[in-house]
Amino acid sequence: MVNLVQRVEDTWRTCSKSDSSGASNSGCESSKESSRSSTPVLDTDRTDRLRDKMRHRTESGDHWFSLEFFPPRTASGAVNLISRFDRMGSGGPLFIDVTWHPAGDPGSDKETSSMMIASTAVNYCGLESILHLTCCNQTKEKITGYLSKAKRLGLKNIMALRGDPMGADWEEEEAGFNYATDLVKHIRCEFDDYFDICVAGYPTGHPEAESYDEDLRHLKEKVDAGADFIITQLFFRADTFLKFVRDCRAIGITCPILPGIFPIQGYQSLRQLVKLSKLEVPEEIMQVIEPIKDNDAAIRNYGIEQAVSMCRVLLESGEVPGLHFYTLNREVATMEVLRQLGLWIEDPRRTLPWAVSAHPKRKVEDVRPIFWASRPKSYIYRTQDWDDFPNGRWGNSSSPAFGELNDYYLFYLKSKSSKDALLKMWGEELTSEQSVYEVFTSYITAQPNVAGHKVMCLPWNDDPLAPETNLLKDELDKVNRRGVLTINSQPSINGKPSSDPIVGWGPPGGYVFQKAYLEFFTSSENVTALLKVLKKYEPRVNYHIVNVHGQNTTNAHDMQPNAVTWGIFPGREIVQPTVVDPVSFLYWKDEAFALWIEQWAKLYEDESPSRMIIKYIHDNYFLVNLVDNDFPLDNCLWQVIDDMFELLDNPPEEQPAEQPAEQPNDEQSDKEQPGK
Amino acid sequence: MVNLVQRVEDTWRTCSKSDSSGASNSGCESSKESSRSSTPVLDTDRTDRLRDKMRHRTESGDHWFSLEFFPPRTASGAVNLISRFDRMGSGGPLFIDVTWHPAGDPGSDKETSSMMIASTAVNYCGLESILHLTCCNQTKEKITGYLSKAKRLGLKNIMALRGDPMGADWEEEEAGFNYATDLVKHIRCEFDDYFDICVAGYPTGHPEAESYDEDLRHLKEKVDAGADFIITQLFFRADTFLKFVRDCRAIGITCPILPGIFPIQGYQSLRQLVKLSKLEVPEEIMQVIEPIKDNDAAIRNYGIEQAVSMCRVLLESGEVPGLHFYTLNREVATMEVLRQLGLWIEDPRRTLPWAVSAHPKRKVEDVRPIFWASRPKSYIYRTQDWDDFPNGRWGNSSSPAFGELNDYYLFYLKSKSSKDALLKMWGEELTSEQSVYEVFTSYITAQPNVAGHKVMCLPWNDDPLAPETNLLKDELDKVNRRGVLTINSQPSINGKPSSDPIVGWGPPGGYVFQKAYLEFFTSSENVTALLKVLKKYEPRVNYHIVNVHGQNTTNAHDMQPNAVTWGIFPGREIVQPTVVDPVSFLYWKDEAFALWIEQWAKLYEDESPSRMIIKYIHDNYFLVNLVDNDFPLDNCLWQVIDDMFELLDNPPEEQPAEQPAEQPNDEQSDKEQPGK
Repeated sequence: MVNLVQRVEDTWRTCSKSDSSGASNSGCESSKESSRSSTPVLDTDRTDRLRDKMRHRTESGDHWFSLEFFPPRTASGAVNLISRFDRMGSGGPLFIDVTWHPAGDPGSDKETSSMMIASTAVNYCGLESILHLTCCNQTKEKITGYLSKAKRLGLKNIMALRGDPMGADWEEEEAGFNYATDLVKHIRCEFDDYFDICVAGYPTGHPEAESYDEDLRHLKEKVDAGADFIITQLFFRADTFLKFVRDCRAIGITCPILPGIFPIQGYQSLRQLVKLSKLEVPEEIMQVIEPIKDNDAAIRNYGIEQAVSMCRVLLESGEVPGLHFYTLNREVATMEVLRQLGLWIEDPRRTLPWAVSAHPKRKVEDVRPIFWASRPKSYIYRTQDWDDFPNGRWGNSSSPAFGELNDYYLFYLKSKSSKDALLKMWGEELTSEQSVYEVFTSYITAQPNVAGHKVMCLPWNDDPLAPETNLLKDELDKVNRRGVLTINSQPSINGKPSSDPIVGWGPPGGYVFQKAYLEFFTSSENVTALLKVLKKYEPRVNYHIVNVHGQNTTNAHDMQPNAVTWGIFPGREIVQPTVVDPVSFLYWKDEAFALWIEQWAKLYEDESPSRMIIKYIHDNYFLVNLVDNDFPLDNCLWQVIDDMFELLDNPPEEQPAEQPAEQPNDEQSDKEQPGK
Repeated sequence: MVNLVQRVEDTWRTCSKSDSSGASNSGCESSKESSRSSTPVLDTDRTDRLRDKMRHRTESGDHWFSLEFFPPRTASGAVNLISRFDRMGSGGPLFIDVTWHPAGDPGSDKETSSMMIASTAVNYCGLESILHLTCCNQTKEKITGYLSKAKRLGLKNIMALRGDPMGADWEEEEAGFNYATDLVKHIRCEFDDYFDICVAGYPTGHPEAESYDEDLRHLKEKVDAGADFIITQLFFRADTFLKFVRDCRAIGITCPILPGIFPIQGYQSLRQLVKLSKLEVPEEIMQVIEPIKDNDAAIRNYGIEQAVSMCRVLLESGEVPGLHFYTLNREVATMEVLRQLGLWIEDPRRTLPWAVSAHPKRKVEDVRPIFWASRPKSYIYRTQDWDDFPNGRWGNSSSPAFGELNDYYLFYLKSKSSKDALLKMWGEELTSEQSVYEVFTSYITAQPNVAGHKVMCLPWNDDPLAPETNLLKDELDKVNRRGVLTINSQPSINGKPSSDPIVGWGPPGGYVFQKAYLEFFTSSENVTALLKVLKKYEPRVNYHIVNVHGQNTTNAHDMQPNAVTWGIFPGREIVQPTVVDPVSFLYWKDEAFALWIEQWAKLYEDESPSRMIIKYIHDNYFLVNLVDNDFPLDNCLWQVIDDMFELLDNPPEEQPAEQPAEQPNDEQSDKEQPGK
């Protein structure tokens, strides 16, 4: 656990200007002259660099791992790869890298390009990323253009390669010798020290090199030209790598050298690898594999076993601070190797309740509206043009406008599930609003719907319920059945330790708090009853109620934001990462209503009854959010909904028509209603 | 209580841009276009104006009062008047006003000038203030100069008077008719709508006016020229005022008219008044007073009774939203009248834990370092040149430098007690450091010192212990006796209601929190033991330890501020008004050490033993602050001090000299010390 804590602390520390920590004891009159801003600064040249993170982890003996991916061929492949980034990112890689294929338009704005995939990993998945770049057959202008674009997109690390005409997935490790050096020099010349630069190393020598020694000399040139660390081509024996490191050190290469690990995942992929890389698979491996070559599972198990034992030797050698994995865009084998090595973080500590973007401009960001809790990538996308990000307080720093809803982006209004899968989950045919309520209920309860399919997502929630929301499952079930269609909620929390496995976040030794929050769609009939009920809950409950046309009702003072998640930590100012902001709620409203149509209604034929039902809800329902400000008490929001149902079930008695007109008016009969 | 709550809410509301509150229900697509900053803006033209506050209070039927003072003649008179502002300000006046005496250099930088006294009321006492200004025999340039200076100093309201050559304390109510109108016009012409303007009204007509009706017409001219409200000359019968108001309304004067109330405080002052103001004291009053003219107490009691009964008639008339009191710089009579009327706020609700300055530039300020908790005026003075004030977060907004310690100001390094009083409290003669400890202990316990005098203040605390600190009295007593000389402390609080009478602050319905804090001077021997003890309390306790030379020890991460007081309120972001900021601690250190010398050592002769003792402490003691980050648990800081004493009482056993050198070293014997 020490390492996990260390990592969270590291992340927090990168958000402050100074690198020092712990007790200091010195005559420091001069500290009076230091800048007193404790605010994170946009200084990627200091504490936030990949090479510095490597150095800190190396010095503390805290082994790391990194993951290599290649860009997808199709848009749906891109959606899947981004999901994979999220899943594999949760295990705690120090960085990922994305390969560069000159034939595949790698620097374009296409959603499948190397450039855009690496940008997505940084900006939307919060992953420290290295973009590969090959220089073979490219003009200096073209290369500078790519680098400028990468910098603009928030990329901070380049793997400088010569590149060659081969096309296999792992080709980019085959860097040419003279030319990669030229690229390193070019980067340093044009961009000074902005980028961290990685170069490729060949434990058995580059296949085109005159000799192993000659190849080592070229590697030394690349490092001398300004490379910060080396990642090696794959190899099959620990000794191969350890000898290579010794030989590098002997000729004066002092930077980190990361071994490239390739868990064997199948007979065919190994054969292809051998052919393309001109590597020799050692006899002892071939002897095991040949007999089981038709048994994929057996080969994969062997590959895992072989990789684990080789990695153990490497880590125990003391020469290896971290391991680099060629994932081939697959998850199982690499994750299993990392689990067996104890490097995979099963329960990652969160620095904030939401995933922090790795874009340097957003480093200061520590407040977001709660509305996008399940759609953080959409929030990042819609705020990508902001000059400042909220830091400490929402009101101060946030920019005035969200990106328009008609902008297109991969994960913006699209589901990652196929149309077929969505129809199975959300109903091939809807017969009433009630059918919609049942879809929500199935999602909440994780029980199969009437057609026998589990509802794994909703338009507003691409993933199953969060563990935290599960705490509210019974209550959510009950209200969704009656048409309170919940899309976001959190329980109240009155000072749980920041290390709490479900609701904890931030550095150790702190306490986290929440106000209960509930957000749902519901009919205007329900809203009418709800507004009557809410009068009883002033000022305890804040509410915002809006329909698609922007008809808006709230009791928020002066449209001020309400902090609903905050944390108190040793030696720090208070962190309030989530707010209910009345103004951004109106931007969120557009998105939340659009998802009814874009993701759900459009599954059905024009004019079909199913489509008309969703359209009716879109046009007539209200989006409601409720905050219970009394966080130390039991959450009253369920009672609010119960009261609303009670009022609907037992409405105030109507006066019979024959009664004289001067009988009690509406207000009075309201007071006399049963159950009050 | 509703009114008190309303006032706090008003104060909070003035810090946000919009004036609306409560539920709004409208189609408000357009609200998307509104600025989304919830941050207070420096816009004194909108919600922060005295005339708007009057209007709000008038509309809500919440009666107010205001207080008139004249400037002091001497510097020590100024110190006393400022203390009076604090005491009378705590009762909740809507505003105070300061008169203008052309003969007394009223616009100068002297600490006794009208200009500086009004500025002090605004900036240091947080009081909404009106500066009187007379124009008789002045050039336009001179007047414009005064107004510019007033604006620069943060003054926002002017009482526009003609002025005349008379010299009594209340003369300024005697405004000339043509000329006051000219001054109103001049202010509006030169400063547009910046200032709120008040003019004088004469319920029985101005003594120099041709007639009562003629005087009313001149008043109408003043209002038409741009005055916002009227304060009247004193009068003795409610009917006089009520008729005057009716007559004003009849000729179209619609602005607020505030009655000037003069509680009779003595026979001589009443006689002088009659002579100078040319007012007639009604027969029924003279009949009561003449028989008791030599009995001051009886006259004062009568004056109180007469004022109360007249004010009751005024308030019940429905024509009087607020009462203006001519205090003659005295407290007792006015406060008693206000208490009997129920207008004096006995237990004012605090909007923040510290008094908010009324300077418009500081309106946004909501974070301060805890160190100046007992010296808020010094803090305001030392930060008066900042361009930005911390808002929400300390690090962001605060300027880099504090004003130099050698600057002079009234309340900066001076005590408000006389040298004689201080010697009685702090000792005519000190014989040892122990005598100093006893002074601290007497202050804490409120018990007389050895000479039989109560210690009502210390150099760092000009007032007796705060109620909150009283909660810690027993513990403070114990540690001060042993030379832990406490100067600032607060208990931990884990979510008390914001309405709590002792520790509450901010609007109702909230919860306030604190981390326990302790700040003290102590010997270097104690500090050595303390540092050993503190190792056991990592990371629970943050500490900063510094001596006068700047030798500084801390375990604060990256010199970041630690929030030690915060509040959670309905529908708002989190407020963290007090922080322990490592950088400003080094500025505070200079001030805290200087007070030993400036206030205490200098009471004694050069080279005297008493002076040498204080000098020794100044030169050798350390200033320590401790924060217990675990606010939900019992405060551990007393245990830290106990452990320190325990270690001092039972030091690790010294090895006898005859033992060989290779015996356990210091560290080991530390582990073996008794009592561990």
